[in-house]
Amino acid sequence: MKIRDIGERALIDRLTKLLPHDIVLGAGEDDCAVLDYGDEYLLITTDMLHQSTDFPDEMAPWQMGWMSVAVSLSDIAAMGGRPFATVAALGLPDDVEIAFVEGIVKGMNACAKKFDIPIVGGDTDEHDELTIVCTILGSVKKDELLRRKGAQKGDLVCVTGELGTAEAGLRALKMDIQPNVKHALTKKLFEPQPRVNEAIALATSDAATSMMDISDGLALSLHDLNKANNIGFLIYGDKLPVLDETKVISTGLDLPLYGAGDFELLFTIKPNALERARKACQFTVIGEVTSGDILVKKDDVTEKIEAKGYEHFR
Amino acid sequence: MKIRDIGERALIDRLTKLLPHDIVLGAGEDDCAVLDYGDEYLLITTDMLHQSTDFPDEMAPWQMGWMSVAVSLSDIAAMGGRPFATVAALGLPDDVEIAFVEGIVKGMNACAKKFDIPIVGGDTDEHDELTIVCTILGSVKKDELLRRKGAQKGDLVCVTGELGTAEAGLRALKMDIQPNVKHALTKKLFEPQPRVNEAIALATSDAATSMMDISDGLALSLHDLNKANNIGFLIYGDKLPVLDETKVISTGLDLPLYGAGDFELLFTIKPNALERARKACQFTVIGEVTSGDILVKKDDVTEKIEAKGYEHFR
Repeated sequence: MKIRDIGERALIDRLTKLLPHDIVLGAGEDDCAVLDYGDEYLLITTDMLHQSTDFPDEMAPWQMGWMSVAVSLSDIAAMGGRPFATVAALGLPDDVEIAFVEGIVKGMNACAKKFDIPIVGGDTDEHDELTIVCTILGSVKKDELLRRKGAQKGDLVCVTGELGTAEAGLRALKMDIQPNVKHALTKKLFEPQPRVNEAIALATSDAATSMMDISDGLALSLHDLNKANNIGFLIYGDKLPVLDETKVISTGLDLPLYGAGDFELLFTIKPNALERARKACQFTVIGEVTSGDILVKKDDVTEKIEAKGYEHFR
Repeated sequence: MKIRDIGERALIDRLTKLLPHDIVLGAGEDDCAVLDYGDEYLLITTDMLHQSTDFPDEMAPWQMGWMSVAVSLSDIAAMGGRPFATVAALGLPDDVEIAFVEGIVKGMNACAKKFDIPIVGGDTDEHDELTIVCTILGSVKKDELLRRKGAQKGDLVCVTGELGTAEAGLRALKMDIQPNVKHALTKKLFEPQPRVNEAIALATSDAATSMMDISDGLALSLHDLNKANNIGFLIYGDKLPVLDETKVISTGLDLPLYGAGDFELLFTIKPNALERARKACQFTVIGEVTSGDILVKKDDVTEKIEAKGYEHFR
């Protein structure tokens, strides 16, 4: 059987079973692996990006570098961690221009520098296709670790920023629309802003009961939280935060629910922690945790949110 | 200008200049990046391997996985570190068999397990070409860190194991020779044994003044030590440790000096630390540190060792 017959999520489940994980928190369940290290947890995450899937032709080398660091930073943020070091492996075709590679590294450095993290090392390799793997280390106090596990019935469901923006940007690339809309959306798509500072503030505030990022889309992320907590959701379809530019592309629920590539935080809080959470960062309450199905309600119509979004090998 | 016009080493020099490194030891100079972390240093290294360059057709998936972990473990070893966690990013063609991927992960786990290190996380990505990036974390007591810098005139030059084995294995693949010789050499090539335990023992013994691994070959590694210390070497050409099977492929100095892909340790010690080092691990004294050129002497003929070996983009 080939891996395209089962998809990425089933493949990862199978591979994870081959690895003994009894000493590690988070492996296969959270956005990062979590290692017990003295008074703290060490967090580590690695992400592989490459030309044909992750870097559209319109993307500048600087943006490829920025994005490569941003996606891994988002994983550290998703657990409430403070990132402190990055390494990067670059697979490069041998006919690539030096200036192109320098552009990538400048973009990586710009993103890392914004969050005060050094790029401490790396590797270069000759490769048919441009491939970038960033691995980021973070740390978190033991009582501030936020995991997918922890949400309970009655909690409020919250997201930072807006939903569906990256998917709208991807569609905009192929559409003949106002240049300012296209520009705004593709900039959001190509230069995602990981919610590192928001995550640290939330973790410190002790307001959240669970957290993850929504890089695979809100729908798949809700299903991940369901898997970790055996809970349901009622999502308020008319409360989903969406940019005006995104509404130019589509006004339906498809973009905010199923669009992938946004590096926003999805988290749950106890209703009585709402004020404390508001002091930590800006976010929108988009629903509540239930004991039922994963549902969205809009204009008095309630329907199931499907487990679809971004998945490799599908 | 394209990167193939300058080669990997010049490219890395250029990229390193783009990154501010004032708070990091080792960046661009050593086998790992070194991070100040409380009472210890954290070590981190990342290596990208891929089908066309690193995995000959004769290699089993299990061996691909093993090698991917082994090369990064060797970097941690090269600085005297104790590895403690691995993450892996796998780029996989979508038509690959699940059993093939499981073979890779089993090989990775076997190598990690041999050194008691968990594989704590990872990423999978759809990729035209099989690509594996292992990133390994290690730690080392501050007074036990071994760097390339530190060798001084009069020190003895030492290596673990044998030289030229991997290159002999690579050549053997294309030769019509005794099956037992071919098997012995390709097994060494495909299942390298990182010198983790030897390195920890050496670091603890306080016998070594500098260390690195010789994955790019002895010659390039000696030039790296020269660059870090402004020293020369006199290498004893008749003392270079070479397997009998390697001599079947070539009896000259080309394999032990210029063959790449051996994951042995190259280190220097003070002559009066020789006995202490012998108690730590097995090795061969292959020369001495001088203030002159990088030379090899064999049968009363002395010649320069060139800066050639394995380099990407060349």
